[in-house]
Amino acid sequence: MTSNSTRERLVEAAIDLLHVHAYPAVGVQAICESAGVRKGSFYHFFGSKEDLAITAVDEAWARYRTLVVEPAIATGDPIPTAEAESPCLPGSADGGRVPHGCMFCRLAASVTEQEPRLQQRLGDLFGEWADMLGGGSEGWATLADLQGRLVIGFALPEGVTS
Amino acid sequence: MTSNSTRERLVEAAIDLLHVHAYPAVGVQAICESAGVRKGSFYHFFGSKEDLAITAVDEAWARYRTLVVEPAIATGDPIPTAEAESPCLPGSADGGRVPHGCMFCRLAASVTEQEPRLQQRLGDLFGEWADMLGGGSEGWATLADLQGRLVIGFALPEGVTS
Repeated sequence: MTSNSTRERLVEAAIDLLHVHAYPAVGVQAICESAGVRKGSFYHFFGSKEDLAITAVDEAWARYRTLVVEPAIATGDPIPTAEAESPCLPGSADGGRVPHGCMFCRLAASVTEQEPRLQQRLGDLFGEWADMLGGGSEGWATLADLQGRLVIGFALPEGVTS
Repeated sequence: MTSNSTRERLVEAAIDLLHVHAYPAVGVQAICESAGVRKGSFYHFFGSKEDLAITAVDEAWARYRTLVVEPAIATGDPIPTAEAESPCLPGSADGGRVPHGCMFCRLAASVTEQEPRLQQRLGDLFGEWADMLGGGSEGWATLADLQGRLVIGFALPEGVTS
């Protein structure tokens, strides 16, 4: 395995794990085990869990933006129901479908001021997303609608029935 | 200190901590330290962290519903901007104001199927809240708007500027 692929495996493992677990629940040890990488190698590639998480957010957002957000906006409905209920990143765990998790939403709700760079990266991402959704108060409102559906979906994995 | 007040202190400590940290980041040890209760006493009152969290959700929701949700609905604007940006529970840490945290939202985004009873309690709570907001798709949409603003606020604690 080249160094490059080791790094990529760590990033993919982080994306997969952060998609379904809150930030404090995802440890470096678990990421390394999932990636099949010795823990001693981790710090050769990343200075900290926060550094890896920022790289994972960058990578996941690049995919999600291209594969989900932009096509949804192109249809004229920026909040496709299926995506809102079942957001996913192609290439991630569970055959590309992670039914009840949104990495950005979970991260935003589980990081604190103890991870200021990761928190800011998420804030910048939300700003970019809101701009894609029309910008200004309209963009933020549409994004809030989407993020809120995701949060509710976390607590109601079977979906809303009424 | 009576047993009753020991139990209450554990519940208050859990509310305070779960308001600002994700569920996996709040351990029984930290709750006991915050409450000034010996860890050995914890399991006299609660079978598990999940049991305490459910009790904390019940108590916090009873207050939040009465002190924030119902008055907001009575004004005709169920999503008062100040509350959405700065939700709080009177009586909790930081003089009653916890600027950037919503316990229910954080919990929903940080519990998993490993805490099925807590997850269901949150789902029931969201259902009750949506009913209060008009029920049906309208109630869920209004609740999603509110929860989404909270999530975005977590990543942008200084607020949205554009």
